[in-house]
Amino acid sequence: MPAPLVPVEIREFAEPELPPGGALLRTALSEVCGTDVHLWHGRLSGVPYPIIPGHVATGTLDAIRGTLTDAEGGALREGDRVAFFDVHRTCGRCLACTAHRTPTRCGSRRVYGITDSATEGLYGGWAQKVYLEPGVVVARLPDGVSFESYIGGGCGLLTAVHIIERSKIVLGDTVVVQGAGAVGMSAAALARAAGAGQVIVIGAPQSRLDLSLKMGADVVINIDTTAPEARLEQVLALTRGLGADVVIEAAGSARAFEEGVRLARNGGAYVIAGHYTNVGDSTINVHEHINRKHLDIRGCWGSEVGHFLRALRVLERHHHDVPWHLIGAQKFGLAAINDALAVAASMEIPKALVDPWS
Amino acid sequence: MPAPLVPVEIREFAEPELPPGGALLRTALSEVCGTDVHLWHGRLSGVPYPIIPGHVATGTLDAIRGTLTDAEGGALREGDRVAFFDVHRTCGRCLACTAHRTPTRCGSRRVYGITDSATEGLYGGWAQKVYLEPGVVVARLPDGVSFESYIGGGCGLLTAVHIIERSKIVLGDTVVVQGAGAVGMSAAALARAAGAGQVIVIGAPQSRLDLSLKMGADVVINIDTTAPEARLEQVLALTRGLGADVVIEAAGSARAFEEGVRLARNGGAYVIAGHYTNVGDSTINVHEHINRKHLDIRGCWGSEVGHFLRALRVLERHHHDVPWHLIGAQKFGLAAINDALAVAASMEIPKALVDPWS
Amino acid sequence: MPAPLVPVEIREFAEPELPPGGALLRTALSEVCGTDVHLWHGRLSGVPYPIIPGHVATGTLDAIRGTLTDAEGGALREGDRVAFFDVHRTCGRCLACTAHRTPTRCGSRRVYGITDSATEGLYGGWAQKVYLEPGVVVARLPDGVSFESYIGGGCGLLTAVHIIERSKIVLGDTVVVQGAGAVGMSAAALARAAGAGQVIVIGAPQSRLDLSLKMGADVVINIDTTAPEARLEQVLALTRGLGADVVIEAAGSARAFEEGVRLARNGGAYVIAGHYTNVGDSTINVHEHINRKHLDIRGCWGSEVGHFLRALRVLERHHHDVPWHLIGAQKFGLAAINDALAVAASMEIPKALVDPWS
Amino acid sequence: MPAPLVPVEIREFAEPELPPGGALLRTALSEVCGTDVHLWHGRLSGVPYPIIPGHVATGTLDAIRGTLTDAEGGALREGDRVAFFDVHRTCGRCLACTAHRTPTRCGSRRVYGITDSATEGLYGGWAQKVYLEPGVVVARLPDGVSFESYIGGGCGLLTAVHIIERSKIVLGDTVVVQGAGAVGMSAAALARAAGAGQVIVIGAPQSRLDLSLKMGADVVINIDTTAPEARLEQVLALTRGLGADVVIEAAGSARAFEEGVRLARNGGAYVIAGHYTNVGDSTINVHEHINRKHLDIRGCWGSEVGHFLRALRVLERHHHDVPWHLIGAQKFGLAAINDALAVAASMEIPKALVDPWS
Repeated sequence: MPAPLVPVEIREFAEPELPPGGALLRTALSEVCGTDVHLWHGRLSGVPYPIIPGHVATGTLDAIRGTLTDAEGGALREGDRVAFFDVHRTCGRCLACTAHRTPTRCGSRRVYGITDSATEGLYGGWAQKVYLEPGVVVARLPDGVSFESYIGGGCGLLTAVHIIERSKIVLGDTVVVQGAGAVGMSAAALARAAGAGQVIVIGAPQSRLDLSLKMGADVVINIDTTAPEARLEQVLALTRGLGADVVIEAAGSARAFEEGVRLARNGGAYVIAGHYTNVGDSTINVHEHINRKHLDIRGCWGSEVGHFLRALRVLERHHHDVPWHLIGAQKFGLAAINDALAVAASMEIPKALVDPWS
Repeated sequence: MPAPLVPVEIREFAEPELPPGGALLRTALSEVCGTDVHLWHGRLSGVPYPIIPGHVATGTLDAIRGTLTDAEGGALREGDRVAFFDVHRTCGRCLACTAHRTPTRCGSRRVYGITDSATEGLYGGWAQKVYLEPGVVVARLPDGVSFESYIGGGCGLLTAVHIIERSKIVLGDTVVVQGAGAVGMSAAALARAAGAGQVIVIGAPQSRLDLSLKMGADVVINIDTTAPEARLEQVLALTRGLGADVVIEAAGSARAFEEGVRLARNGGAYVIAGHYTNVGDSTINVHEHINRKHLDIRGCWGSEVGHFLRALRVLERHHHDVPWHLIGAQKFGLAAINDALAVAASMEIPKALVDPWS
Repeated sequence: MPAPLVPVEIREFAEPELPPGGALLRTALSEVCGTDVHLWHGRLSGVPYPIIPGHVATGTLDAIRGTLTDAEGGALREGDRVAFFDVHRTCGRCLACTAHRTPTRCGSRRVYGITDSATEGLYGGWAQKVYLEPGVVVARLPDGVSFESYIGGGCGLLTAVHIIERSKIVLGDTVVVQGAGAVGMSAAALARAAGAGQVIVIGAPQSRLDLSLKMGADVVINIDTTAPEARLEQVLALTRGLGADVVIEAAGSARAFEEGVRLARNGGAYVIAGHYTNVGDSTINVHEHINRKHLDIRGCWGSEVGHFLRALRVLERHHHDVPWHLIGAQKFGLAAINDALAVAASMEIPKALVDPWS
Repeated sequence: MPAPLVPVEIREFAEPELPPGGALLRTALSEVCGTDVHLWHGRLSGVPYPIIPGHVATGTLDAIRGTLTDAEGGALREGDRVAFFDVHRTCGRCLACTAHRTPTRCGSRRVYGITDSATEGLYGGWAQKVYLEPGVVVARLPDGVSFESYIGGGCGLLTAVHIIERSKIVLGDTVVVQGAGAVGMSAAALARAAGAGQVIVIGAPQSRLDLSLKMGADVVINIDTTAPEARLEQVLALTRGLGADVVIEAAGSARAFEEGVRLARNGGAYVIAGHYTNVGDSTINVHEHINRKHLDIRGCWGSEVGHFLRALRVLERHHHDVPWHLIGAQKFGLAAINDALAVAASMEIPKALVDPWS
């Protein structure tokens, strides 16, 4: 991706010389997610174009120089099926990393496929081989978890693990998820896995809602065919008039926020995870929707190493009963990469996959 | 108070016959707080006028029928200096009281001086004697805590105890308090008492800011003489550019909310306690101020029995070094009760006291 | 049960006259749980024998005087299939109920079938009709949840809901449950329902472990055929050498506690719920097992109204996939009630059911 | 310290050549704390003798190669008065560092003066110059905070910040601190600073208890002149028969643990921080002291970067009213270093200071 709004080009790079502790991943699959569309539209600031997109990728270890270990100290070997955590160089020393316990707000953080320039190396999953610099967290895919399952979850699954941690779901809670994209669908699946008594997904189009039902939603509400008042009434009807215990915003719409504060019950929680970019201002009545409601609103930014590692455990547990592989609905080779972007931008499918070798 | 917007009248009532477990308080002091002004302006819905205002009061036990015990089971006796918790009839059975752990949202709650009609009995502190119905929580004032200290704290102190609980202040935190009224000043005092490394109060007029400094603020910022940008800059300058760890909204202004989300740091907390009535809508950018900031916003409604009991412990500890008695700046007898309301409404002083016997 | 260690007798009582808000339950099923065995053995102090045992029961509403509402304010009607929360008269005013937020430690609490004497009324589920005094929390059984499922869960399920709340399980955690009784099996089922990546049950006999597998355990370890060291090794092997994220003690054995602190990982959590009676002292090394391990040990006593209400939501969600009805393995009529006690005391089956009409 | 149980020797080392990002501290003061006595007695395993003791030190920056920044990114300069965090090389990638959020249990951690051999460099505060390797967290002492105040707090203050975080003190709580050493005294000071309504220190000898009163304790109890039952009675008398809301173990005694579970109230918290080494087994009754008591016991190991940074904020706030400088009661030069160890081992004074230049 040489710059925003121009076609993505295929370029050739020499294989990097690995430093001790470095490795090369032979990419099996990467993804085109909403962030990649934002990158292409130039909506993120400070991006060092040209970049190799694809912040999430999975494949096999192609080469290791010296020793490479996973988070638990286990040795990784060439040929292992692995994934890596795209966020790296988190400093571990600043206030965000330490006293504040919010490493996703560390100023030193860098992210594969987004903040690392192609001029620096193979830092993106759309490359056939990805350079895993020393310090990047690499983990083996659990047995039985396919590349398709992992990448179908992808960054959305990691974000969803973070969302669920922030949501503090208690057994029997009613959870409303706003948004039926990759994040919303994984959040719905994990809300159910975390003990929700009832999961309601609000979104569109119908095809994504149908998939949301397969992912674990009990009820879906189509925003294309309903008004906000009707949706509120439906949620109240499903919660004996109280509203949802937990609402999860994974829609990225200013209107969704205004609606979400109404859907939550008194003393409930509202996790905000979909406003990855600026989509304009929202208007709320603080008396009615926050103060009197005794509501908790929790912003949820990015994901941490721990969420990546837990996501693998979740996949191990649930890959049989949650069809993550269906989220990545269509595969594209590098020759068709601009088509992949176009399809992702059109929101026809929740996520396009990239197989840079096909 | 026969109805909104008409003068308060003095009426005589017969002393009630006490049921077993009931008691009469001989009022020493009650208060005119912002809520009473709201009541007078008719801004609260569902109020069963005529009412005897004064939801908070303190005095001596005048008569007890049968046994009256405090929360710890200790016997109370006639002549004891006591205070009572104005919220009563919380049901203990509904979801708000139990599974949701938010008893301040119980639908059965009633509040002295607000939701109890004068036609039902002496349910308000502006009466010379207040009827303490069975089940109302009554507690002895700690030795050395004067009526003036208790009532100077009053309902604002109880709310502040709740605020501090919600704020989860950690040692060394910078806390910004928006609002220099009775709630804000107690919140500033308690933020300091709870370990804040730095307490900044933003409000007006200057006289209240001066008192805020005596209450425990380290820095005060006058909103009458500064613009929001200048205030943000000052908070950033005092926090090495990060913003406040905790912001407490005790201002009851739609603009304060919009400012507060800017004053908090990444991963910080913002407790909303001042929007007791509807003061109109607020506009925020969810991406910038909640999601990317990974911010926690916590609505804080009313107070619970536990906050009342803790407030007494706080007064016992701090009545020497925190001048709560200065918040109740002026005392009024019943004959001057309309003057008291006028003074409170004018915001000249943070709180007017009522001595119904003078 | 006239007194400890003598046979239980069948006595006839007149139907009580109901006060306003009171009701009668026509018992469908009650249970003989471990507590009933303790009562029979006289191991609980302060029990006002004679008592009607059966602190948990379910059935249909036989008579209501006036209005009876559920926790959400919905009207209940005669003929409704309901359950009630056995703990009542929790005061809502003492420190335990309020400031400490531990209502299970309220000194005023009374419990059907345990602390209420038969001389006071029909306060126990082994009676054909149970008196539901005003204030007792009553709730409708969700559609599709059979009496057998509810009572199979019974008090153990409520305790398990409390345990899971205290355990703060995060997605992917490994959870070890010590004990394969009614509490342990429900805890295993709920740990899985709350997102555990792996659930290991340690207990005996094999029949209970087999049932634990049906309830949701992934791995079971038989204490009759293994030594503590072997069990520790197995847990370490299943957790890459780290130990369990969460250990739940539902065994009621002093040795189990000594073993449990070893099974938890560094920074893990250990919830203690099985020591309902005094089974002697335990010996641990505080340096090794608590301090250096940075371990959280959390006592978990009884259950609250909220746990009862959540248990019904959990049954509604999971009665199809978790076979609670299998826990109550055998039904007894009143004529065979002493046999029921004997079977329960022998630990042959996890729980005996009582149908007082058969 | 060439080896356990032999006299400490003074050795000369060449000044190290600094790598980029490295620095040299000119030591003003270091300390002899209980850990140094343990090191001398050989009670810690895996220590790579010979070592330069003194894990905590403060002084001025003597030399910097390249850029050295503090945690907030501010540039540090030669001549600055600074302290550094003794724990370094925490990996930031393992489960302890990430998913478990317990970086003090990271297997890669190293600690100045304890786990770093003198053969590797100047890794200890008893040296005149300490090598600050790249990555070590360095911070400026706040204005007005003397070297004596900082080192008087020392490692005990950092541990105390961690303890207070784990204790979750709420306004008005009664806090009992077991132990009147450097950790216990700082914990008492910080418990008060964090809002405790009452702080009780249990320990010996009387001189330390007297200093504890100056540090912030309200009540002290001398274990040399009282029996455990009398101490329990006194704590009950001070808490209306309930027991302490929070108990903090900073005594390092197996008996203290057995006593502490009795001192806590139902639903209270017990933080275990003093069992830094193995002092033998403790015996408790799990039914009585954990389960029925619904008690939280929280192990607290070491301290994190965030605790170091917060400790500096605490010193900035409280160095005027809390006499940390009195904890370091006596200063020793290198020539008298074995006397310093002997005094510290004798427990005559809470902490000996080391000025390696005198």
